[in-house]
Amino acid sequence: MAERLIVIGGDAAGMAAASQARRRRSPDDLKIVAFERGRFTSYSACGIPYWISGLVPQRDQLIARDPATFRDRFAIDVRLRHEVTRIDLDRREVIARDLTGGDEVRERFDTLVYATGAHPVRPAWARSDVLGVFGVQTLEDGAALRDWLDGDTRPRQAVVVGGGYIGVEMAEALIQRGLEVTLVEKAKQPMSTVDPDMAELVNDAMRGVGVRIRTGLAVTGLQERDGRVSAVLTSDGPIPADLVVLGLGVRPNVELAEAAGLPVGPSGALRVDRRMRVPGADDVWAAGDCVECLHRVSGMPVHIPLGTHANKQGRVAGINIGGGYATFPGVIGTAVIKVCDLEVGRTGLREQDAAAAGFEFVSVITESTNRAGYFPGSRPMTVKLIAERPTGRLLGAQIVGWSEAAKRIDALAVALWNGMTVDDMTALDLGYAPPYSPVWDPVLIAARKAVDALGR
Amino acid sequence: MAERLIVIGGDAAGMAAASQARRRRSPDDLKIVAFERGRFTSYSACGIPYWISGLVPQRDQLIARDPATFRDRFAIDVRLRHEVTRIDLDRREVIARDLTGGDEVRERFDTLVYATGAHPVRPAWARSDVLGVFGVQTLEDGAALRDWLDGDTRPRQAVVVGGGYIGVEMAEALIQRGLEVTLVEKAKQPMSTVDPDMAELVNDAMRGVGVRIRTGLAVTGLQERDGRVSAVLTSDGPIPADLVVLGLGVRPNVELAEAAGLPVGPSGALRVDRRMRVPGADDVWAAGDCVECLHRVSGMPVHIPLGTHANKQGRVAGINIGGGYATFPGVIGTAVIKVCDLEVGRTGLREQDAAAAGFEFVSVITESTNRAGYFPGSRPMTVKLIAERPTGRLLGAQIVGWSEAAKRIDALAVALWNGMTVDDMTALDLGYAPPYSPVWDPVLIAARKAVDALGR
Repeated sequence: MAERLIVIGGDAAGMAAASQARRRRSPDDLKIVAFERGRFTSYSACGIPYWISGLVPQRDQLIARDPATFRDRFAIDVRLRHEVTRIDLDRREVIARDLTGGDEVRERFDTLVYATGAHPVRPAWARSDVLGVFGVQTLEDGAALRDWLDGDTRPRQAVVVGGGYIGVEMAEALIQRGLEVTLVEKAKQPMSTVDPDMAELVNDAMRGVGVRIRTGLAVTGLQERDGRVSAVLTSDGPIPADLVVLGLGVRPNVELAEAAGLPVGPSGALRVDRRMRVPGADDVWAAGDCVECLHRVSGMPVHIPLGTHANKQGRVAGINIGGGYATFPGVIGTAVIKVCDLEVGRTGLREQDAAAAGFEFVSVITESTNRAGYFPGSRPMTVKLIAERPTGRLLGAQIVGWSEAAKRIDALAVALWNGMTVDDMTALDLGYAPPYSPVWDPVLIAARKAVDALGR
Repeated sequence: MAERLIVIGGDAAGMAAASQARRRRSPDDLKIVAFERGRFTSYSACGIPYWISGLVPQRDQLIARDPATFRDRFAIDVRLRHEVTRIDLDRREVIARDLTGGDEVRERFDTLVYATGAHPVRPAWARSDVLGVFGVQTLEDGAALRDWLDGDTRPRQAVVVGGGYIGVEMAEALIQRGLEVTLVEKAKQPMSTVDPDMAELVNDAMRGVGVRIRTGLAVTGLQERDGRVSAVLTSDGPIPADLVVLGLGVRPNVELAEAAGLPVGPSGALRVDRRMRVPGADDVWAAGDCVECLHRVSGMPVHIPLGTHANKQGRVAGINIGGGYATFPGVIGTAVIKVCDLEVGRTGLREQDAAAAGFEFVSVITESTNRAGYFPGSRPMTVKLIAERPTGRLLGAQIVGWSEAAKRIDALAVALWNGMTVDDMTALDLGYAPPYSPVWDPVLIAARKAVDALGR
């Protein structure tokens, strides 16, 4: 009789695991059932802001693979609108509810993949009975927000609460839709994923396209009119709003796992080993936005919900379930974002992370250009490096530039991944031609400056 | 009394060495004299095609630092139009000729930097008494070519001989100037710096902008009319031409060094140690297009004349002369080029190099996109990886794409530099956001395919 694999969560991590397991094991050997609470499988949540802005016209462009594809090409039985309500590890069963009809189904498993993802933080003030307040995590969230934008309401004044990636991307998307946009940030500055000196460049760019940035403000409540939001109440008075977007980050969906006794780590996400197995449970695997993983620079467990990690982790779990061998060796915190034509890349530790992890370090900032200075279209590019003192080991890097800048972070990410010192980096053989770089690549200029700062 | 440093060659390598030595040693401690045969110091030879095309309007934009700057800011005595004719290692003297007046000067040195660069290959058929035939190596070459383009001659039909980087760039530049351009290549294909399958993409792009490509042709001579070139004679008949550009590569200028008994290596360029010292000679250093260096992947000495290496090598020599410690650990053959809006990057070994070096290997080609497939402006991007069998160590990589593609090679170059395997590379934490990459970065897709090809 075929073994049974149950996957909880039909997005990137879960379906990558299912597909990889299928590549190695036939339907006669392994039956695969995937439960997905929502209406869609395997879509690009990261693309939602661009669908909201209109840059990506059709919702379905964001869907990588639909359930029919999984069924027909991979013999994976995807059950949409099915919410798993309980995992019974002793009986090797999951209990799910059909959200369309309310029926309860029980499915036995030999192997379980837990890939429930994460949900947007929704503080108490963001009452669910007030219309016009949206998270941006699932395609359903995006659809609701688009309906609000296109519906009778025709909102004109948006408040985005929280200045992380999604908040910043949504602020820009709503500007592109013609709304007035205020970004409210509790801290001194939005874009705290980079150091304040680098974030300031991004903030200038956002102001440049018309985003009003209010910092140091706590949101205390909502004002409503006829059941619809009319203002966001803050520690510094109300801000009129007929649309509110929550950009306060996400929390891993671990409730189900916790109830089943699976271990949650210090980051608040599920613990897994290097092969994406949940420790202490037999044949239970987990992947994606619900798990924590090793930060290879700080050595600490972190929760970094990103589609790229979810896909890799799901693939690793699936290879292992399929009888192969793969590991997920951790992350280094690489991220890129486009903000109002400004390109931002980061990897490794920020100054505050490096300090928190107990490192001694130097940090340097250099101004250079993306092309040879004399080449048409040459634009400024700022590179920041953080290096351990006295070893010179790279700890983190950030890039802000106007074009062809963000993906330059990859070279630094690979250097960081390999534990390079800034001394070694000065010799790196990087590509040079006038349309792409000054003869001293900005990365090399920064490495040289870091060597100087180390007093070499 | 101050020691004396003589630098032969006032371009990137020589002046980088001089500047770095000056940073560490004051004029009271070290007197620095640089002899330069030409009229300029420290300019971007790589920018010449863009000055020819008109994209870079002014010649002086290509000059990084002029002699007055070196004199006033660095106390370096640059003597333009002075050609060193002999090095006397026993007497510790160089003998130079003032090309403007013909006087001979002798200068004593304690330390010598040999940075004479390279010269374009000029075959016997390219007779110097026929007007309209140009190399593109020095700013003087560029000026002569521009004068020819803008003068009474008004050439209309150009033949570029040789399909390396400079040939390809010049073909495009001359198309932009409105000329008919034929590129003549002896081999089966131009752009042999990448493998034939990748070069074919470039050739298509060149044909797309109107470059006529003739391959498998040997040039046998020139036809002239009134002392000016009128056709290029080939093994397949004459090709009308009122302008001929030589793109047959360059040879290191080693004659002076050889005459002084300095060692030339198997690549035909000067041998140096890791600190850029010439072995067997006291206090003689060399750097730039006249030296060979270690290819870190093949382990063989190579001659790769590129401004980026010249600058790094000069800097290393200068630091050491200044009393510091620096090494140049070799190259891995990274290069990027823009051809008719097509972007090309390469690093490491091509298939033929890998075979010649005795490696067993697999190679894979993947098609992906520079942005998420659904994101506006998403364009094809082809990535090729060559990996050692059975270790999986990356040996080489090539990228061809339509935009934001070339500099992606840097991430692969850093992976190669660190000896990563394609297995390890599948886990790399590279930047992901829809404007910059599919959720599986093209580099990661290629690494996965290489792992499959290795039969893992």
